Amino acid sequence: MRRGAILVLSGPSGAGKSTIINAAADEIGEYYFSISTTTRAPRMGEKDGVDYFFVTKEVFEEDIKAGNFLEYAEVHGNYYGTSLKPVREALDQDKLVIFDIDIQGHRLVRAKMNDITTSAFITPPTLKELETRLRARCTDDEAVILRRIENAKEEIRALGEYDFTIINDTVDAAAEKFVIVAKAARLKQSTEDEVEFIRSWLNT
Amino acid sequence: MRRGAILVLSGPSGAGKSTIINAAADEIGEYYFSISTTTRAPRMGEKDGVDYFFVTKEVFEEDIKAGNFLEYAEVHGNYYGTSLKPVREALDQDKLVIFDIDIQGHRLVRAKMNDITTSAFITPPTLKELETRLRARCTDDEAVILRRIENAKEEIRALGEYDFTIINDTVDAAAEKFVIVAKAARLKQSTEDEVEFIRSWLNT
Repeated sequence: MRRGAILVLSGPSGAGKSTIINAAADEIGEYYFSISTTTRAPRMGEKDGVDYFFVTKEVFEEDIKAGNFLEYAEVHGNYYGTSLKPVREALDQDKLVIFDIDIQGHRLVRAKMNDITTSAFITPPTLKELETRLRARCTDDEAVILRRIENAKEEIRALGEYDFTIINDTVDAAAEKFVIVAKAARLKQSTEDEVEFIRSWLNT
Repeated sequence: MRRGAILVLSGPSGAGKSTIINAAADEIGEYYFSISTTTRAPRMGEKDGVDYFFVTKEVFEEDIKAGNFLEYAEVHGNYYGTSLKPVREALDQDKLVIFDIDIQGHRLVRAKMNDITTSAFITPPTLKELETRLRARCTDDEAVILRRIENAKEEIRALGEYDFTIINDTVDAAAEKFVIVAKAARLKQSTEDEVEFIRSWLNT
């Protein structure tokens, strides 16, 4: 059996993850971009089922009890999590499942699905550049921007836990690296299947 | 500083490692194919400095004492090893250093240079196919062929230790996979350098 592979992307908000994935989309084959579930209220312009699955705290806690999450965490009083069901379906369809999750989420996915997981940490070239990008978005007030920068410094300290680091200096160069990471993730998955094939064959 | 990366290839004699490297050579950038040092006598057609560095047992044992080997082993009464010096020189020149070594050698390289090492196990699609290839080479007698097949079964059991497996079904498909592995190895190395860069930057 051939199953899909998991590719975890982490990195500061403003690192350019979505831009890189879009720039590389034509070359990485069929993929499913995992949509997180959250209890926080939608922000201006956010759509249910596109940016997040928006649910109530009660529904989220029911799902926790039922074991429906691959990973979840509580951040600033809101829950964020990844539902298992759509991930399983995408894996069964041999898709590359891409997660945009934080370093805690990465650790939880590794713990549960290490054999099919490849990970990359995407970072802006400098904290100064990150600050510029966050201000250019004009979506956050000053306090939020400063907190995001502090978070970024914290996160970047954890990047040794990732298989690859991609410094988003220019989008083209970063997208090219991302294509290699995505192909390596795919190759790793076919590897696991082939290992099973060879093992079973050797034992006959 | 940017340093070269290490790519370890293992797999049964007859798996087609050299064929795959040659088929992929144009796409993997500058590389240094590590030449092993051995105390066994050259076979028909083998050239010193091309197939192996051929040395006496005395010279080899001097080098062991002097700590000049990255890895070495004694097999059927002969020494085989990898000298550190040419590997260090190639790494300093930012080359991809490719090793064709066995599973013990892989473990020793991992132990010493894990942070810049990527590995792939290359195998024929079936043991039957391996046998056919070994017989087609007409270089080994029956006893050697049977021993190689037994060795292959042993080795294939260890392939879970490798980052990637490449089943050499067709040369083109295997070479394509090898290119991905080589690029991933390169990307991993630049990763380590970038990690150091970012860490030093964060601490200022």
